[in-house]
Amino acid sequence: MATATTSIFDSIADDLAAAHRIFDRELQSRRSCVNALANQLRSYYGKRLRPALLFLSAKTIAEPTEAHHILAAVVEMVHLATLVHDDVLDEAELRRHAPTISYLQGNEAAVLLGDYLISHAYHLCSSLQDQQASRTIAGATNTVCEGELLQLSHRGDLELNESTYFQIVGDKTASLCAVCCQLGGVFAGGTDAQVAALHQFGMNLGVAFQIVDDLLDLTGKPEKVGKSLGLDAKKAKLTLPLIRYLLQSPPKQCARMRELISGDAGAETLQEMRKMLRASPALDSTRKTAAERVESAVDQLNSLPETPARDVLAHVARFVVERQS
Amino acid sequence: MATATTSIFDSIADDLAAAHRIFDRELQSRRSCVNALANQLRSYYGKRLRPALLFLSAKTIAEPTEAHHILAAVVEMVHLATLVHDDVLDEAELRRHAPTISYLQGNEAAVLLGDYLISHAYHLCSSLQDQQASRTIAGATNTVCEGELLQLSHRGDLELNESTYFQIVGDKTASLCAVCCQLGGVFAGGTDAQVAALHQFGMNLGVAFQIVDDLLDLTGKPEKVGKSLGLDAKKAKLTLPLIRYLLQSPPKQCARMRELISGDAGAETLQEMRKMLRASPALDSTRKTAAERVESAVDQLNSLPETPARDVLAHVARFVVERQS
Repeated sequence: MATATTSIFDSIADDLAAAHRIFDRELQSRRSCVNALANQLRSYYGKRLRPALLFLSAKTIAEPTEAHHILAAVVEMVHLATLVHDDVLDEAELRRHAPTISYLQGNEAAVLLGDYLISHAYHLCSSLQDQQASRTIAGATNTVCEGELLQLSHRGDLELNESTYFQIVGDKTASLCAVCCQLGGVFAGGTDAQVAALHQFGMNLGVAFQIVDDLLDLTGKPEKVGKSLGLDAKKAKLTLPLIRYLLQSPPKQCARMRELISGDAGAETLQEMRKMLRASPALDSTRKTAAERVESAVDQLNSLPETPARDVLAHVARFVVERQS
Repeated sequence: MATATTSIFDSIADDLAAAHRIFDRELQSRRSCVNALANQLRSYYGKRLRPALLFLSAKTIAEPTEAHHILAAVVEMVHLATLVHDDVLDEAELRRHAPTISYLQGNEAAVLLGDYLISHAYHLCSSLQDQQASRTIAGATNTVCEGELLQLSHRGDLELNESTYFQIVGDKTASLCAVCCQLGGVFAGGTDAQVAALHQFGMNLGVAFQIVDDLLDLTGKPEKVGKSLGLDAKKAKLTLPLIRYLLQSPPKQCARMRELISGDAGAETLQEMRKMLRASPALDSTRKTAAERVESAVDQLNSLPETPARDVLAHVARFVVERQS
């Protein structure tokens, strides 16, 4: 995605660069050991999807301002904090083709670095004039934590249904995307209706993004995805492809799949799971759901002024389901 | 300390109760699994030292307001978040005479619950009218994280000196105590000089508090302290008593102490360390330093109006060095 998004994001390249300067400045510490650790975050920099959503949402209404640059740095910090803590929870060893912080530096350093990022996100956000952004972002992080905890409470639950899956995904992933789009619009002076449309766009896009993430975890090519795969199955976390598989397959296959999910998930297990999934309609049906969510997202954009930024947002949304990393 | 502080805190009992209602309301989740986990925090409720510092600091100037109640709930959430994450880092099994969240529910739930607390702390704080408190508290949590990371980077460093020890303690513990006193004063309409005195009082008290905590970790009685002890030695974290021991003892004893710190810290190791420490002047000298910090703290109070709250603050500060839990 890095290459493809480079050109998609041409129109906001200066804004992304400005946000990145703020990001770097905010994380500077008096302590060299902290700077050394924070430097290792470089390998986590990726698509910058959330800052991009924030800027593009703004640009459907007006040009991004200094407040947008600050907010973009804030949401990227929040996002990186969730990645760093997620890698602790998932015992992931690889992310963006490089070893994770927890793998390199231990879980303790990773927990503290995540805390440091979150703390600086709020610190930076409270440099803005009013409390609205702080309140909104903290509301979203409350929801992200609830989604993560709901997911954790369903580990090993082979009866997990779609409704709970969508609650988890909406909370842990989509809520932050939605807030990026919403704040982009609010700080560009959007009307309530425009801001609501942007929020809903972000929600649908976020859900689609996570569905594809879950698909890639099960079926992605390690050399393309660049991160530890098969982690959901390893942690007995049911995601949409597996939920649908267990709902639609004959009893014998279901029993075998349950065994594989509950068992010790080595490379062979993952391979057998993939083979079973590919032979079923579960993968296509999951992809279709993600595509439908993207179209719902794009529909929301109709209520916004016709601008190049609006087209780019639609493009980003469609890219989300086609990506292979 | 619970019993003793109950009477010390009589004058702020209503304020503590009001803060606690806000605390409970803020942490309410739509998700029952989140409420079940957050309920387990009850065993972590302890001295409420930080809310008390905030209220008493306010009362040296004016009666606490609704903003103080909110801020007291915020600082208690921040403090509990650091405890929950600390117990993950330290692999502690016991706190306040009860099993830790990480021990009961696993590190993943503990990392996420800590994140949930931090997120709600900022969410609640940004319900206040202006950004000053959010900015100040986030500044303090930045510093707390830096202190924790500095400490982590010195694990196993048997050459740790006092200057670095005091940096760690100032950052990871005292900074939050200082901000409690400072915000208590600011939101009571204190002058710059009064607020600066309160801040400095909190810094000195926080340093003394942590020195005593480190002493208790090495020499406390488990049945009184009520939490896992000997953790610093187990993690090869040098604290003031050990730094002074290694500075002042004959080479042979130093070599043995270094062996004990670097080795596998079982119950016997801790017992031998205690015996060696007791036979040296290190414990008394450490206690003396804590007492001097408390007196520096109390000196700061002289610039504040003579009020009963000021006397209680001095009392709290002196209690900090006498406590056995």
